[in-house]
Amino acid sequence: MAQKVTIATVARHAQVSRQTVSNVLNAPHIVREETRERVRASIATLGYRANQAARQMRTGRSRLIAVRIEPTRDGINGSVLDRFLHGLTEAAGAAGYRVLLYPAADAAGEIATYDDLLGAYELDGFVLTHTDHGDARADWLAEHGVPFVTFGRPWDDPGRHSWVDVDGAEGTAQATRHLIGAGHRRIAFVGWPAGSGVGDDRRAGWRSTLTAAGLDPTGLDRETPDGIRQGEQVARELLDHADPPTALVCTSDSLAVGALRAVRELGHPAAVTGFDDTPVAQVIGLTSVSQPLAEVAARCMDLLVALLDGARPTPPDPVLLAPTLVLRQTT
Amino acid sequence: MAQKVTIATVARHAQVSRQTVSNVLNAPHIVREETRERVRASIATLGYRANQAARQMRTGRSRLIAVRIEPTRDGINGSVLDRFLHGLTEAAGAAGYRVLLYPAADAAGEIATYDDLLGAYELDGFVLTHTDHGDARADWLAEHGVPFVTFGRPWDDPGRHSWVDVDGAEGTAQATRHLIGAGHRRIAFVGWPAGSGVGDDRRAGWRSTLTAAGLDPTGLDRETPDGIRQGEQVARELLDHADPPTALVCTSDSLAVGALRAVRELGHPAAVTGFDDTPVAQVIGLTSVSQPLAEVAARCMDLLVALLDGARPTPPDPVLLAPTLVLRQTT
Repeated sequence: MAQKVTIATVARHAQVSRQTVSNVLNAPHIVREETRERVRASIATLGYRANQAARQMRTGRSRLIAVRIEPTRDGINGSVLDRFLHGLTEAAGAAGYRVLLYPAADAAGEIATYDDLLGAYELDGFVLTHTDHGDARADWLAEHGVPFVTFGRPWDDPGRHSWVDVDGAEGTAQATRHLIGAGHRRIAFVGWPAGSGVGDDRRAGWRSTLTAAGLDPTGLDRETPDGIRQGEQVARELLDHADPPTALVCTSDSLAVGALRAVRELGHPAAVTGFDDTPVAQVIGLTSVSQPLAEVAARCMDLLVALLDGARPTPPDPVLLAPTLVLRQTT
Repeated sequence: MAQKVTIATVARHAQVSRQTVSNVLNAPHIVREETRERVRASIATLGYRANQAARQMRTGRSRLIAVRIEPTRDGINGSVLDRFLHGLTEAAGAAGYRVLLYPAADAAGEIATYDDLLGAYELDGFVLTHTDHGDARADWLAEHGVPFVTFGRPWDDPGRHSWVDVDGAEGTAQATRHLIGAGHRRIAFVGWPAGSGVGDDRRAGWRSTLTAAGLDPTGLDRETPDGIRQGEQVARELLDHADPPTALVCTSDSLAVGALRAVRELGHPAAVTGFDDTPVAQVIGLTSVSQPLAEVAARCMDLLVALLDGARPTPPDPVLLAPTLVLRQTT
């Protein structure tokens, strides 16, 4: 590499003091415009690069935030967090931050990584995904005084920290209302096992919408782990019934893809809706609930920057965004 | 945050010198085991975090590598680079490195970002994706002495720098050989416009396999921008012919999804193959060529670490991996 260009080199070239060069880099508004332009021209001519390691020691801000990346799973639902990551990287870039990725298979693995990450890099903060009841990650970061926001609510205590989330109950309620409007009366739910914040929220939207319309959910609520085969199996059980449902509201596109296979193989004309509006849903014509992921990412970044700038809202600002039902051929 | 714990604090607590603490952090093998354990216990008790900014100034290595993340496009083909990113983050983690993401819409935007990135962070190197003819990004990084490897060949000069790639010609050759083996004689190609390294390579595999089998490709080679609608349009033109092809080899899963629509709507029993084995291909039962992305990522990391450790192979080691044809219902 070429010989190192330092602040002193720039100062000599622009015929100003080192302090003036430093001011142009760190507090340009206090430097006269003509001087500022001369220093910037010298910086460009010499190819000077501010040394982040040194700058970081001065400002205490690294402009680096950390986000977990998960192992690729079935490839359908995983696209949601990938799209969130694209949005977050762009929103972070616009705010002058970069995103550092770390892999972790689960919450416990993630916590084990925090100490290592904070030891190795001067991170400004974290954006967590996949919140659940009693989230030990949030506890750890709060105890260690590390700023963070979450994509997903702290389900036990919505006032616990800053978060952005999408209203899952509103998503399944939109799907259920649409089906009721189309004349369906027996609308089943194919969801995850009870106990997860996200899964229970989506189930609640289906149940409360049925009840509000005077329809009985009894016998129509099913629980299964996520997956195409699992969705197909549960849908077969529901449809193989004396009085089968005419519509299936599913907690994920994976489950909906499976449910749709059962519907087609049994030749049963039941409607199916998914959740997350994945590329697969778009290609196979599956009606699905779409999350505004780019907006989620932008709002996460807004909240994190506010925290880093010293804002400590009490209680923290929650941001709950509405999803949209995307109608296609399966309803 | 709690009061800063420094190496001096740890040294006092463990009753050793500061140099010994430093050795435990940077060269643990030279410290006696009993002493090492005592220092590590103090580090854990006090919650000491090695200051990367300071360590970086000592070692000149940040253990941070940068990778571009692209805007989300149609969501089908984009999954390839997302899967690569998952694999790279895991391979980097295993080697003690973290991945920093930066957004860029194209190569020009990417180059504009390099200076900013290198000024703001002490990056050890880059992993580039989407190489093409006369790649200005590689020129820029080489000129500035920044270590990098690419996922994708330098198409103009394979000996120019370290790279890992998947043999695209071999992928379409596998698809074409499979179709010939199944009795097809008129096998068309639905590809991207001539001129891109990746697209031309995939086209060459189809063409050379036909020719080697004594089959004539004349009139069966089509060019179109990527996309579902584009694939459908081109497939319609090919099938709406006095002597239509009985099979369509496509350069991407997006084009194959479109081709499959044309096949089904026209009621024409043509076989279709895609490229990249995306989640969409898996769900709709599309035969497709699968790239070993986790291995690509691991090999990229191996090459980059070798460069950072000072290896300067002449010529650089190229790594060309073989893809696999995944057979499903469309062939």
